[in-house]
Amino acid sequence: MQAPLRLIPLLEPLRPELEQVDRLLDGIAAEADQPLQSMLGHVLGGGKRLRAALVILVGQVFAAGGAPHQRLAAAVECLHTATLVHDDIVDEAGLRRGRQTLHTLWSTGTALLVGDYLLACSVALLASLDSPRLLGLLAQMLRTIAAGEIREILGSQPACEQRQDYERRVEAKSAALFAGAAEMSGVLCGAGQVHIHELRTFGHQLGLAFQIVDDVLDLVGTESELGKPAGSDLRAGLVTLPVLCYWELVPHDVVVRRVLAGERDAPHVQAAVAAVCASGAIEMALSEALAYARNAQKALLSLPDCAARRTLSALVQGAVERDY
Amino acid sequence: MQAPLRLIPLLEPLRPELEQVDRLLDGIAAEADQPLQSMLGHVLGGGKRLRAALVILVGQVFAAGGAPHQRLAAAVECLHTATLVHDDIVDEAGLRRGRQTLHTLWSTGTALLVGDYLLACSVALLASLDSPRLLGLLAQMLRTIAAGEIREILGSQPACEQRQDYERRVEAKSAALFAGAAEMSGVLCGAGQVHIHELRTFGHQLGLAFQIVDDVLDLVGTESELGKPAGSDLRAGLVTLPVLCYWELVPHDVVVRRVLAGERDAPHVQAAVAAVCASGAIEMALSEALAYARNAQKALLSLPDCAARRTLSALVQGAVERDY
Repeated sequence: MQAPLRLIPLLEPLRPELEQVDRLLDGIAAEADQPLQSMLGHVLGGGKRLRAALVILVGQVFAAGGAPHQRLAAAVECLHTATLVHDDIVDEAGLRRGRQTLHTLWSTGTALLVGDYLLACSVALLASLDSPRLLGLLAQMLRTIAAGEIREILGSQPACEQRQDYERRVEAKSAALFAGAAEMSGVLCGAGQVHIHELRTFGHQLGLAFQIVDDVLDLVGTESELGKPAGSDLRAGLVTLPVLCYWELVPHDVVVRRVLAGERDAPHVQAAVAAVCASGAIEMALSEALAYARNAQKALLSLPDCAARRTLSALVQGAVERDY
Repeated sequence: MQAPLRLIPLLEPLRPELEQVDRLLDGIAAEADQPLQSMLGHVLGGGKRLRAALVILVGQVFAAGGAPHQRLAAAVECLHTATLVHDDIVDEAGLRRGRQTLHTLWSTGTALLVGDYLLACSVALLASLDSPRLLGLLAQMLRTIAAGEIREILGSQPACEQRQDYERRVEAKSAALFAGAAEMSGVLCGAGQVHIHELRTFGHQLGLAFQIVDDVLDLVGTESELGKPAGSDLRAGLVTLPVLCYWELVPHDVVVRRVLAGERDAPHVQAAVAAVCASGAIEMALSEALAYARNAQKALLSLPDCAARRTLSALVQGAVERDY
């Protein structure tokens, strides 16, 4: 990946551990022939390593860590990246993290296979940890994510979207991976069943908060902040929580429904984004994200009190306050 | 899947075991919501269960079997099916086993995710067997298959195809899965390292023989036998061993090169197929398949002599003599 690791300030103390994780990811790319090597470098680079940090921090809470947790963190990053690569094919997305997506640079078939390769790398890293339970959890995450996305593609018409559709989608899209990462890290520590349950709740609630903020940022962010144009969810016909809140505030909306019905040129999308932002829907959605964040922080209270636990709590706060 | 299991006569004695494998596969589909359930049924049904049979037979050679081998066999069938679903997207294939491919029935995105779901099911089945080594082998297979296909897509121009390109491709396409299935079954039996090495060789050589015969059948088979039109490899711009043999016999060929250069209408493809079939190339390719088959049978000789070993040997013979 070569590029220096871009971390949010809160995670700077984890830099040495996260650089080890990046070295494992570099190793995965280096093992492959060209051009696969460059493709892997392209997609594995540039991430914020939030999920890896979560794995490392949970390890620290239980005074565990080192090489096994770094391998688990790398496995989670590989799985996450694989799902992003496949997701971008499914959504026909052109940009990701400010870079062109793999399938637009190469081809759908190539990107699909790079995603499969990364899934295999994730399984290989976990298999080296000698814990079939971890692999069971990986399988469960991947199944939830794939089944959730299938529901998303074949789901109801956007204009009829319900809150429960959104929640199931966010569950599959973000919460499953955060919950699985936290739980796997607890399992690798040999944590007790009660702690593992709380870790899962923590990751799940954090994932919900995180995704809602992502969905808000897609509306209020600038193109340079997002690495893609604002309003891209609407342009893709995707109804997110801010839009559902907007419909609760403005039941007779036509501006947003017009975009979802297919009028997806820039002026219509910009008008829809402006309408949602002016309605109070953003604040409503953010207060829901904050409620999930509080649940996540509450789940942490059962874990041993220590610096790592405080960082996890601050990470949750950062997830709802972020402008990244 | 509902439909009764279609087995080649040689595998009839395994019907009770293979029906148990199918019950596991039915269970995977039944667990999913609609329409994913129907999609899984569509792609998991209709296979000949050769790889599953190989797993069961290797188990019997070492007097092992029952539920664990059935789970392994189901995991191998899930992995195989996932790679077929993804392969059909990559190759833009319209038919598979005489049925419409998933991505033509639904969409590329949906089929991609169904493949991911099946990969997750494969990992989950293996994780339940409590052997991280098996998961390491699964990861290795999937990596070999994905990397091989990426090379295939981005490889040299068809008309410049070399034997070594073909061999690497067949290695990734068929041999990796047969070799991995045989090796995993040996590992699950607790077989010794020497036997495991021979099992891997056996599967590898069988896979090479099997794929060559598949490539021959694509030229000499009828549409009803193949479940897709004859000459479909040529039509997809794919150079297989019979074509490489043909070029050794007819170095100044224009008939086949014209198709590979892009003239892929029915009369040109039919003329190319006829030219290859009339040249002696089919017989040349088949004699190579037979040599691989003999290597596979030789590798079996180190295993304990028993009815299951004889069936494995007959399965190899059947693979080169088959008309299915």
